[in-house]
Amino acid sequence: MAILGWILGRRLANREQQDRKIGTFEGVPAMGLDGLGSSAYGPEAALTILIPLGAAGLAYIGPIMAAIVGLLLILYLSYRQTIAAYPNNGGSYIVSRENLGRNISLLAAAGLMVDYVLNVAVGISAGVGALVSAVPSLHPYILPLCLGILVLVTIANLRGTMDAGRLFALPTYLFVASFMLILGIGVWRTVASGGQPVPVISPPPLPAVAGTAGLWLLMHSFASGCTAMTGVEAVSNGMSAFKEPTLRYGRRTLAAICLILGLLLGGIAFLAQHYRILAMNQEKEGYQSVLSQLAQAVVGDGVFYYIAMASLLCVLALSANTSFVDFPRLCRMVAEDGFLPRPFAVVGRRLVFSVGILYLAVTAGILFIVFGGITDRLIPLFAIGAFLTFTLSQTGMVVHWVKALRSAKDTRTRAAHQAHLAVNAAGATITGLALIVIVAAKFKEGAWITVIVIPTVIVLLHQVRRYYDRLDATLREAGPISLDRMEAPVVLVVTERWNKLTDKALSFAFRLSPDIIAVHVTRLAGEEGEEEERAIRGMWAKDVEAPARAAGVKPPRLLLLSADYRLMHGPLLKLIKELEDEFADRTIAVLLPEIVKTSWWQSLMHTHRARRLHSKLLQFGGSNVVVISMPWYLKEPKIEDAIITEPSEVRAGSTRSEPSSVSGLHGATDQVRQAISSCSSDHDN
Amino acid sequence: MAILGWILGRRLANREQQDRKIGTFEGVPAMGLDGLGSSAYGPEAALTILIPLGAAGLAYIGPIMAAIVGLLLILYLSYRQTIAAYPNNGGSYIVSRENLGRNISLLAAAGLMVDYVLNVAVGISAGVGALVSAVPSLHPYILPLCLGILVLVTIANLRGTMDAGRLFALPTYLFVASFMLILGIGVWRTVASGGQPVPVISPPPLPAVAGTAGLWLLMHSFASGCTAMTGVEAVSNGMSAFKEPTLRYGRRTLAAICLILGLLLGGIAFLAQHYRILAMNQEKEGYQSVLSQLAQAVVGDGVFYYIAMASLLCVLALSANTSFVDFPRLCRMVAEDGFLPRPFAVVGRRLVFSVGILYLAVTAGILFIVFGGITDRLIPLFAIGAFLTFTLSQTGMVVHWVKALRSAKDTRTRAAHQAHLAVNAAGATITGLALIVIVAAKFKEGAWITVIVIPTVIVLLHQVRRYYDRLDATLREAGPISLDRMEAPVVLVVTERWNKLTDKALSFAFRLSPDIIAVHVTRLAGEEGEEEERAIRGMWAKDVEAPARAAGVKPPRLLLLSADYRLMHGPLLKLIKELEDEFADRTIAVLLPEIVKTSWWQSLMHTHRARRLHSKLLQFGGSNVVVISMPWYLKEPKIEDAIITEPSEVRAGSTRSEPSSVSGLHGATDQVRQAISSCSSDHDN
Repeated sequence: MAILGWILGRRLANREQQDRKIGTFEGVPAMGLDGLGSSAYGPEAALTILIPLGAAGLAYIGPIMAAIVGLLLILYLSYRQTIAAYPNNGGSYIVSRENLGRNISLLAAAGLMVDYVLNVAVGISAGVGALVSAVPSLHPYILPLCLGILVLVTIANLRGTMDAGRLFALPTYLFVASFMLILGIGVWRTVASGGQPVPVISPPPLPAVAGTAGLWLLMHSFASGCTAMTGVEAVSNGMSAFKEPTLRYGRRTLAAICLILGLLLGGIAFLAQHYRILAMNQEKEGYQSVLSQLAQAVVGDGVFYYIAMASLLCVLALSANTSFVDFPRLCRMVAEDGFLPRPFAVVGRRLVFSVGILYLAVTAGILFIVFGGITDRLIPLFAIGAFLTFTLSQTGMVVHWVKALRSAKDTRTRAAHQAHLAVNAAGATITGLALIVIVAAKFKEGAWITVIVIPTVIVLLHQVRRYYDRLDATLREAGPISLDRMEAPVVLVVTERWNKLTDKALSFAFRLSPDIIAVHVTRLAGEEGEEEERAIRGMWAKDVEAPARAAGVKPPRLLLLSADYRLMHGPLLKLIKELEDEFADRTIAVLLPEIVKTSWWQSLMHTHRARRLHSKLLQFGGSNVVVISMPWYLKEPKIEDAIITEPSEVRAGSTRSEPSSVSGLHGATDQVRQAISSCSSDHDN
Repeated sequence: MAILGWILGRRLANREQQDRKIGTFEGVPAMGLDGLGSSAYGPEAALTILIPLGAAGLAYIGPIMAAIVGLLLILYLSYRQTIAAYPNNGGSYIVSRENLGRNISLLAAAGLMVDYVLNVAVGISAGVGALVSAVPSLHPYILPLCLGILVLVTIANLRGTMDAGRLFALPTYLFVASFMLILGIGVWRTVASGGQPVPVISPPPLPAVAGTAGLWLLMHSFASGCTAMTGVEAVSNGMSAFKEPTLRYGRRTLAAICLILGLLLGGIAFLAQHYRILAMNQEKEGYQSVLSQLAQAVVGDGVFYYIAMASLLCVLALSANTSFVDFPRLCRMVAEDGFLPRPFAVVGRRLVFSVGILYLAVTAGILFIVFGGITDRLIPLFAIGAFLTFTLSQTGMVVHWVKALRSAKDTRTRAAHQAHLAVNAAGATITGLALIVIVAAKFKEGAWITVIVIPTVIVLLHQVRRYYDRLDATLREAGPISLDRMEAPVVLVVTERWNKLTDKALSFAFRLSPDIIAVHVTRLAGEEGEEEERAIRGMWAKDVEAPARAAGVKPPRLLLLSADYRLMHGPLLKLIKELEDEFADRTIAVLLPEIVKTSWWQSLMHTHRARRLHSKLLQFGGSNVVVISMPWYLKEPKIEDAIITEPSEVRAGSTRSEPSSVSGLHGATDQVRQAISSCSSDHDN
């Protein structure tokens, strides 16, 4: 446990929640890495589709990228007003749940969940792929490298979103600074040279025109370039991570991400055209990415080039972080609606949803192991979930504004709503169209898998909800408590041996009920003589029955049950069944004395029969049975050892903690005093 | 669990114990494989030491092997009378415990335990080594082969000694038959040819005389040859595996093993001399074992040669089985004396001591993984444990007969005892001398490790015993039960939510005690509003306090405790501490309602807070706390599902089961009826 504390940090108190929320500085690395990393492969993907056109393809990259940046602008404006309308959580799940109904919201949730898992796998794999192509001697270690980065990102996020944001700030801002500089220099040179800059290192010469640009090719190129846009929705899904005022920090983070991404995309398209850079075939030797060609053309291959490429590599590898921030928060909301298992909604040690983080890590880890760390094949599946949720979220917002327009009174509000409506409607239409293009263009390449996976996820979500509904139906509140059956339980004191421990159990049993049956289970170690049985009966008569009669108490019965299969639960459950048949409604309390093991070696020293019996009795005993565990210690424990003591800096430093709620018991002392006195005063009467 | 049943077979009842005991047929494969396998490497080891002598070495193999066979005869006679004197278990541990005292017996136990573990590792490794040198393409799979055989032997023994004996009977008897035939043919040809048989395939020509035979070399050769004797003690340690009359079957098995081993050793020595076969250097290419050379010389390399060598290979690989039969039985006895953890004495599913079997398998598995499946280096350690226990057991028997002589009256008994004494004294002296030679000869090769390991094991055994002694001191029988403190406990009903389940818990609490505090733990999912608290208080006043007052019962207090760290046990343990401070001696019963999970997927759906709270309360609550688990089922379980139903052939077929003890409850029905009626009749009053 000490190791866990060292890796993950101390357990945080609820009231530290506000101190753990992030601002813009952490927000950009935490949520933006996916979006920023996209700038590396979005333009590359669009240019790759244009390869068949040869040099003529360069003419199209401008308009295509302009369309993509335009779409980015629309998405920015849409999400800006979406998070204003849903400042606690403006993600597609909530927006479509509120406006489009449960089923559509589950479609959005499934799309997002699949996309977040793919983003982890594809992002880390792309980063490692770039690293390996830069340092070929690392080739045999692709899988360990992928898993290592996965573990790093997982631990950072288990420590908290703030820790992850701060840890990954350096590579993020280094990437932004160096590429802004490269693009700035490039643009300045282009302008200064009248559109004909001289590259420091020339990109490979362009092939002659090899084909003509059909509409389908251009649409395909556009659809591929759209992968640059995945990650824009991250802020809306992660709003709950921001500190107050959340709207301000959310908007700033969204603006920062979109602005940087827009500049990168525009700059890359502009320079590719003027430096005459095309995508190279990845499968041929000597391959260089578009960004690498571009950086070499602008600044040569000095130290600065390597710094820029290293920061790009980090951003790619860490783009998984966006998933680790958003996926657990999404799962929490879905779990709170009953469509995912409840553990997804448990707030973990560091105030993040640890189960979601671990689930994401395990799923991505399995994908890595199955694909050997090379997840290229998953890339086609990638943009679909993003554009599906874009479309759903925009459509949800359209419905939102239509509703708002109905209830709006004054013309000024109406005008504002109409403007909002126009933006979201444009967004919904364009992202919807883009989605159709993407699905159509990539269906054969693997998009069909998404079309199978997403409905499967939705079915699973419904199954989960059905389970909880069934559970809730059996548990639903019962109204006033019934106090008519006040009969004491029949108490079974179970043991394999008689000693002080069982003595204590028996004497406690006397305080619970007049009806006690002591059960001694024999033959646990195979056949044994009758001698032992006789000894036990003798002991019983002398040490239990006689003192009980002397004290005027009904002496309990001793029952010797033979465990023919050396398992205690068999004969005991049979006895419970007989007792249930006899007393239809009486509770049967099974009292199990148990030696408490406090260390691993002590656990090795015992057979754990009491613990196993406890679990079997609960599993098969039925509603009339309760099981009472009575501990016995070799060394009396200290309650203090189990209670988290707060480090002094938290108590002193946290300005937000109100004195009245310092800690559970102190805050409630009056309550507790009353409760305690209600027990004792009654006995004074 | 169904898979477990398929692999290990159904759980056996105590009364099937007799049917599971073995006779001579199973005894030889089960316990003899170690001894028989020794015939392969004992003569080889002795001859290897003689390599430096060249052809002259052949002259010494006769006397050396004669000494070894003589020692074998003495051991046979000694063990024959040892198992007669201790027919239930004549192993060194028991014999030295009874005659030489506790500390010496622990020395014997430690020596045996180390030896059994080494035997598993060395035996399987030798078998796989032989296989790999026969089929070199298997070389990359040494470790998987070792582990695979280990798993096979482990499973066979977990199914029971009888299953293992029957499974391994075929290779054992095939080995015996084929080598008896080879030796028979060889001896017949030697005699027929007047001592100069013509080999079918000639062994490699002998080198010229290269050195002279000093005493030390001959002693070293003898000591190495003595490894052929390990495994002779197996029968004495495994006596409890035999069916009645155990002495007869034990003696027959011992005689069979010793006879076969003696014939093999003698035959090998005789033929090696006449066919002029020496050991070859294992590290040189073209290496062939002595047995392989010998078989080729006698019968050529036809099919029969391959059958014989394959059976030898099986016997070597399966010689680990002897350890799997004896080690768990030894550990059981040591555990029953309190020197090993109790789980070693638990009779498992198939009436064998599963924990010992699994421990042996895991330890050997670790050795395999550490040494990569090649455990040659462990061989020098091997014979020491065996000869240590030979000596201790013989010495113990000497003391036994000396004592018996003192109490013997008539001269005939005295004479018999004196004869026994003489045999065991001779055995003790010779095995003791052999032990000294072995330790001296092999000290540098690694025997010093044993000299460190065995004392370490003894220290551990004492540590275990100290723990149990301390435990027993705190638990020792308490005399008459005390009934003076009959106050009802303070009951805490704990929950994170209020519903039918907590309702049931509360209404059960009313039956236990008038002093009830209901504890609702809040803020488990981070900060939450006061709204919820108000709702709970309202519900409490209406649904609990009002009905309680109406029924004339003291209404329980509701306490809202804030879980600042989202863990239920913190605030609860604090409350318990306050209660303990207030009521020094009253028991505090914590009532935990719990939804019972019956399948793996159901387990995934819940947060398991009740279960974790249960464990923390037991661990830290202290002696005044008991924890009551109250189950809630989504579907009421059937007790019948938990009870083992016997297959009909067992009930009908087993002639030994007495009708009165057919099964726990049926046999005890009268008892149970009485116990039950004692509960109900009282209430009729």
